[in-house]
Amino acid sequence: MYHEANQANDASDENEDAQSAYAYPLLIKRLLHTPMAHAREQEIVYRGKVRISYAQLQERIARLANGLERLGVKHGTTVAVMDWDSHRYLECYFAIPMMGAVLQTVNIRLSQAEIAYTIDHARAEVVLVHTDFLPVLEAIREKLPRVHTLVLIDDEGNVTPPPGLEFADEYERLLASSGTQFDFPDFDENTRATTFYTTGTTGLPKGVYFSHRQLVLHTITVMAALTSPEDGQRVHRGDVYMPLTPMFHVHAWGMPYIATLMGLKQVYPGRYVPDRIVELIREEAVTYSHCVGTILHMMLSCPQAKTADFSKWKVVIGGGALPNGLARAALERGIDIFTGYGMSETCPVLTLAQLMPSREPRTLDEEVSLRCRTGLPIPLVDLRIVDEEMRDVPHDGLASGEVVVRAPWLTQGYLHNPEASKVLWEGGYLHTQDVARIGTDGYLQITDRIKDVIKSGGEWVSSLDVESLISQHPAVAEVAVIGIKSEKWGERPAAVVVLHPECAMPVSAEDIRTHVMQFVETGKISKYAVPEIVKFVDAIEKTSVGKLNKKWLRENFD
Amino acid sequence: MYHEANQANDASDENEDAQSAYAYPLLIKRLLHTPMAHAREQEIVYRGKVRISYAQLQERIARLANGLERLGVKHGTTVAVMDWDSHRYLECYFAIPMMGAVLQTVNIRLSQAEIAYTIDHARAEVVLVHTDFLPVLEAIREKLPRVHTLVLIDDEGNVTPPPGLEFADEYERLLASSGTQFDFPDFDENTRATTFYTTGTTGLPKGVYFSHRQLVLHTITVMAALTSPEDGQRVHRGDVYMPLTPMFHVHAWGMPYIATLMGLKQVYPGRYVPDRIVELIREEAVTYSHCVGTILHMMLSCPQAKTADFSKWKVVIGGGALPNGLARAALERGIDIFTGYGMSETCPVLTLAQLMPSREPRTLDEEVSLRCRTGLPIPLVDLRIVDEEMRDVPHDGLASGEVVVRAPWLTQGYLHNPEASKVLWEGGYLHTQDVARIGTDGYLQITDRIKDVIKSGGEWVSSLDVESLISQHPAVAEVAVIGIKSEKWGERPAAVVVLHPECAMPVSAEDIRTHVMQFVETGKISKYAVPEIVKFVDAIEKTSVGKLNKKWLRENFD
Repeated sequence: MYHEANQANDASDENEDAQSAYAYPLLIKRLLHTPMAHAREQEIVYRGKVRISYAQLQERIARLANGLERLGVKHGTTVAVMDWDSHRYLECYFAIPMMGAVLQTVNIRLSQAEIAYTIDHARAEVVLVHTDFLPVLEAIREKLPRVHTLVLIDDEGNVTPPPGLEFADEYERLLASSGTQFDFPDFDENTRATTFYTTGTTGLPKGVYFSHRQLVLHTITVMAALTSPEDGQRVHRGDVYMPLTPMFHVHAWGMPYIATLMGLKQVYPGRYVPDRIVELIREEAVTYSHCVGTILHMMLSCPQAKTADFSKWKVVIGGGALPNGLARAALERGIDIFTGYGMSETCPVLTLAQLMPSREPRTLDEEVSLRCRTGLPIPLVDLRIVDEEMRDVPHDGLASGEVVVRAPWLTQGYLHNPEASKVLWEGGYLHTQDVARIGTDGYLQITDRIKDVIKSGGEWVSSLDVESLISQHPAVAEVAVIGIKSEKWGERPAAVVVLHPECAMPVSAEDIRTHVMQFVETGKISKYAVPEIVKFVDAIEKTSVGKLNKKWLRENFD
Repeated sequence: MYHEANQANDASDENEDAQSAYAYPLLIKRLLHTPMAHAREQEIVYRGKVRISYAQLQERIARLANGLERLGVKHGTTVAVMDWDSHRYLECYFAIPMMGAVLQTVNIRLSQAEIAYTIDHARAEVVLVHTDFLPVLEAIREKLPRVHTLVLIDDEGNVTPPPGLEFADEYERLLASSGTQFDFPDFDENTRATTFYTTGTTGLPKGVYFSHRQLVLHTITVMAALTSPEDGQRVHRGDVYMPLTPMFHVHAWGMPYIATLMGLKQVYPGRYVPDRIVELIREEAVTYSHCVGTILHMMLSCPQAKTADFSKWKVVIGGGALPNGLARAALERGIDIFTGYGMSETCPVLTLAQLMPSREPRTLDEEVSLRCRTGLPIPLVDLRIVDEEMRDVPHDGLASGEVVVRAPWLTQGYLHNPEASKVLWEGGYLHTQDVARIGTDGYLQITDRIKDVIKSGGEWVSSLDVESLISQHPAVAEVAVIGIKSEKWGERPAAVVVLHPECAMPVSAEDIRTHVMQFVETGKISKYAVPEIVKFVDAIEKTSVGKLNKKWLRENFD
């Protein structure tokens, strides 16, 4: 006991700490103490149709745990979920890890073969599945020999599952038949809580995983970073939250945990339908969301958006660079837009591009430029940019290096994949494979993915830099820049451009090249950066999480 | 290695985590990553005279570590500091724990005998001492046989220490002669970082102690709680911080760590002289402070305060209840005042009384009442109110119980004091010895210390409740209510009152009793609460940290 240790000597006090009752492991259940003390009447809304209070959330978490325990879920069991963004998903975020089980959030945008691979590779034994995904599950059922239990999620309450699939219960029936009390145990804070698979453009999906300790530290620290700016761009207790990054993807950037801890009203939109999303923002007075740039672009382009009021809406953009053109369009609509940086391997948040205190009014150009940069490391993050020998490169806004990072919430490796894990953690830092500069003001600016950098005429050209310049052309709605083989230069940049549908004026490849050329003249970019080829398309191929699919573009460029 | 563990089985992954390189222990040095990335030019001011940048702070931390290492400080060495609030103290907050040594912050308001006891009891081997405390140190030097090294802190640079004290160096000379690089090592996050002694009103001072993990978690979580309210009462990156709780006392409530992590301008006032403090608020544009009520009262009463502009000043009041009268006076001066609750044993913050989002305008009375309550548990805090058998009492705003708590940052016990540690942690929760109610809105309201509750006529009367009512009398500047023995009732309340100096009207004991009586009539308080005796005094005895000394008052009441 601690008092005996005290008597013996000081050093043994310290050894006792980690094991003692008062050491208080950082478990996900701890995130519920504060909201349950003051926000029990606050509401959580699903598709504008279902409304539950936080008090009901707590009850439903206990019901779900009781139900799953009855179905055989134990400490260490992996439970896979296939659902749209919903209050149910939020319940799974808490109940499953709080039992000591592992929540696998299945990326339902992957191919059938990939979905089967990820569920089986994660050793999932139980699958909770929305009726919309029954055809997928039916097709892959026999590839999931470890899965012994299926639970149906039926929004309408009247779907008959296909005869090949046997369900132990339906989600709402399971909850209704289970008790509202569950004694969630204490256990080691390093117990795995969640896992999901990254959608790299090469090879099979790779599993990342996070412990209770990591998710609690990520939640508290991102909350501290999001709430601390002086004005604008900050999240506070009066906000209404709605994710626009799917809950299967890096646990929606961890934001549902933060929103719950803060006791915010939460709105879960189900499947993302742009018109419906715009309506929900109005109906539920949503003030805070996060998404990739392409989702915001899609929303701003939908018919309902023309007349919508976005002036109370804060949006964090991540998962890829925020093009200047999109940032400007968002600011002009009154959206308080800013950038975050991270990836599946990092839980995900590493930096936030919040404005620093300033008494000076800023021009729109300055605003756009500041908000598009990837920002400052959030607390506790040790972020470096290094050369190939892991030596730090100068923070002068000019030198580029790979971003390597340590933080309390990075995946410890890829699940059951020792070779990839070793590469990820080479040299004791997690390698992001992103190339970046750091300015004298400390702001990080991601310039490219290592594999997307265009090596032209002995120089490295950032595909993102060129995209950003092209996106400033008034006729351009979207652009991807890739490297294509060149006998003479090694590689040369090529641009794939989508024009604004309402763009009346004809725009030629030469117009785009001339537009970029002016930045060469002002010294903003090297002459190697001017795209040799400009191709106009109706839409740009995306990955399953909505990013520009440059691998596909490179392979299919002709 | 982790990838071998991965191959073996899932469970062993988890066991490896705590030991692996990527486990990233929560060490105090991690708090410097973010400010050093973006706030290197931000300033830290001492008495308006010395100004250093954060870049210099980082250099001076390394210099101090190099200097102390030269003087024999090693992992586990306890270094005691006797100084006023200063940039030097901030440097000690970081450098000493970051070396793996233990910082003892000496309460310089204790008696000589107590100071000697605390330094010796903590096993301190090195003492850093400001010239103002040389007489104390000279008097107790022979009671400190373990102390082998003294370092002088000489603001003027020309003080000759008394012949009986031998100094190894002077603080600024030590830094000047030491290098600006120090490779602060990684070690177990449960390593003790700080210790200091509580000033209980009974018995010898008791040592509390906190690990790196505890201080990092307290810093991040209190930052998250302080920054998240919707408007007012919130700390942000544009704030200018000045402590008015001494840095020796519970590391100034942990706020210097938070201010540094946030990259705020910081102002350290040296010794607290009310007029000078008011001037510093103006000169350095201070916007955020924290103190006990008596310090704020003292400041508002000083001559300079009459014409000062406090309208941009946020103040957290802790260390005792905030009387309604003081809250009202502060609000009327434009001060954004709110309450925090905690104690030395709890690092200290447990709750913050921030307003919840509301679209309704509030009356001044409502504001005062909300701001005086002790608020909501901050994230991760498991706070209960319980009866003598540790059963939860209802959260109905009526039932009282002792506040017991678990959180990631509570002292594990009292240093080298197993008996007191056992009492503190009885039943697996830390016992605060505070009596409180929790309302249906989740707000905690401390009603008394267990030992200060007045047991009168079979009822428990809260001395704080009666003080709060009396403080609303316009002529009352300060009041303490204590229980005095009564043949008939067991105990009866007695009030010790200080009248406003400018109060022209004569006020009698009967006037005060009549004032309280009206609240009996409205049912707000029981008739047992009306003080039997009202005594007028010029000043009320305080403890060394400025709290009402009720023990002294009880013992000296005649």
